Amino acid sequence: MNTAELGDRILNGERRALARAITLVESGREDHRTQATELLGHLAKSNRQSLRIGLSGTPGVGKSTFIESFGMMLIGQGLRVAVLAVDPSSSRSGGSILGDKTRMERLSREKNAFIRPSPSQSHLGGVARRTREAIALCEAAAFDVVLIETVGVGQSETVVSEMSDLFLLLLAPAGGDELQGVKRGIMEMADIILINKADGDLKPTAMRTCADYSGALRLLRRRPQDPEGFPMAMTVSAVEEHGLDDAWSQVQSLTQSRRDSGHWDANRAAQAQYWFEQEVRAALLAQLSTAQARAEMEQLGDQVRAGSLSPSAAAETMLTSLIAR
Amino acid sequence: MNTAELGDRILNGERRALARAITLVESGREDHRTQATELLGHLAKSNRQSLRIGLSGTPGVGKSTFIESFGMMLIGQGLRVAVLAVDPSSSRSGGSILGDKTRMERLSREKNAFIRPSPSQSHLGGVARRTREAIALCEAAAFDVVLIETVGVGQSETVVSEMSDLFLLLLAPAGGDELQGVKRGIMEMADIILINKADGDLKPTAMRTCADYSGALRLLRRRPQDPEGFPMAMTVSAVEEHGLDDAWSQVQSLTQSRRDSGHWDANRAAQAQYWFEQEVRAALLAQLSTAQARAEMEQLGDQVRAGSLSPSAAAETMLTSLIAR
Repeated sequence: MNTAELGDRILNGERRALARAITLVESGREDHRTQATELLGHLAKSNRQSLRIGLSGTPGVGKSTFIESFGMMLIGQGLRVAVLAVDPSSSRSGGSILGDKTRMERLSREKNAFIRPSPSQSHLGGVARRTREAIALCEAAAFDVVLIETVGVGQSETVVSEMSDLFLLLLAPAGGDELQGVKRGIMEMADIILINKADGDLKPTAMRTCADYSGALRLLRRRPQDPEGFPMAMTVSAVEEHGLDDAWSQVQSLTQSRRDSGHWDANRAAQAQYWFEQEVRAALLAQLSTAQARAEMEQLGDQVRAGSLSPSAAAETMLTSLIAR
Repeated sequence: MNTAELGDRILNGERRALARAITLVESGREDHRTQATELLGHLAKSNRQSLRIGLSGTPGVGKSTFIESFGMMLIGQGLRVAVLAVDPSSSRSGGSILGDKTRMERLSREKNAFIRPSPSQSHLGGVARRTREAIALCEAAAFDVVLIETVGVGQSETVVSEMSDLFLLLLAPAGGDELQGVKRGIMEMADIILINKADGDLKPTAMRTCADYSGALRLLRRRPQDPEGFPMAMTVSAVEEHGLDDAWSQVQSLTQSRRDSGHWDANRAAQAQYWFEQEVRAALLAQLSTAQARAEMEQLGDQVRAGSLSPSAAAETMLTSLIAR
């Protein structure tokens, strides 16, 4: 299948074509990269926009169950939902946070859902580009909502929030003492904090945790562009499918407000600019990753470490060699 | 004066030649840069090593008084002492933390002392290179101790610690509550924390503060290469010149231990390697700072922000243009 045909099928919403295109953007092969760029250029003309929702949560908080319940609710409203994962740890663990589709059994059977696990081999920079491009592909394939899932170590949240329209943080009910356990930086990214498992015996704890976080959020500086009450904390139960519609209402309300104020477009423009600059920087530094450059850095490094060559002089030699190449 | 002559005078310990050479490494002019690299290459062969001591402290802690008293004590022992400042804020404030030599009136009159304020115009990257090269010049000029002074915002401490053999943190006596005021990262860099102003009415408070920090330091992971008891907290009085000799003894003891274990040389080698890599990276990214590149980035950025060009495609265009240049 050539790029134009693949593009047309994606625009037609075909999930298999979408999956194939994501494999293309994930590939490290140079000819695949050329095709991917061509494809993305072709699809950019569609001008379709999804609602990009970043989602993070500590392990054990019930993230898969939440995504399944939340996704099923959206599909019930006639929406098309894509789920992508950003898992910077997968290169080490060999696993992936969304590798097991059986954890979202109902959702994965829906024709209006698309679930894509994170690739098993990638560094954070590569993950960022792949995810950003996968989002663009999902948008072209006319998905209404793209959920970008990640798992709480901070750096991956930053990456995800830089490519999302809004950010949800899923937390478990817990004593007030554990409030400190969530990194302040991650809390500051969240537009809506959802305290999950507000069901059965845990319900009172969930309510108290929600109140604690509401208080904590009031201490954070409110984003001037957002309406009163945001960022907010709410309770949900993914298992009992309770509170999910409220959460979706708040997401829609925040979205509408940002669209009306022009913040939505400004944010998308700023994100695109950011990724453009990041890619240029990354590519310039990638000149140091070729086998030849690494060997040369190593050899100069030996002299620098031995003290026979100053860091500045060695750097100059290296640069002359890189530029002359 | 040509570079060879300037080099010989520096090796001869002439302070005016040293001052002139530092002006050379601070210069942004391309011919000065060439001369500076030549000079540093020439001097590297001397293989002289000073004890490089990083020093930080919050404003008002009496840093100048401490440096003067500590420096005078070292000079009294027949040592030659250079003082350099790293002040990343000077570009904004227009001032410099060591601009006023009168604050070290006695020390500045000593023939075995050399005091150099931070240049008034510089960004942190430039400051790092200039300071690193100024240290190399002081070493060639046979100074026994090079004090590298900075002021507590975190980033500059990291820079200084990456070019120091050991790191002193000067603090004022204060209640236990204020212990949190010092960034944990800065505390973790310190080999010796000195509680200054342990004199007069403040003496009991200084002792208590010292005990607090000793406790806090015990909670930090000890550097496995260092002897029992390090990092440590001590009280000093720069005004009464009390405790300075003890502090110097501990500095010498730690130095000796690190020399014996081989950590000293390993650390210097690692630092040189770090600065080599930093310089290569900075120079690669500097390709984006030319007027032509900035104009091109701006133009491509317009299209990226408007959504008519994907970040990846724009980055590719930019790189092709940079490499073809």
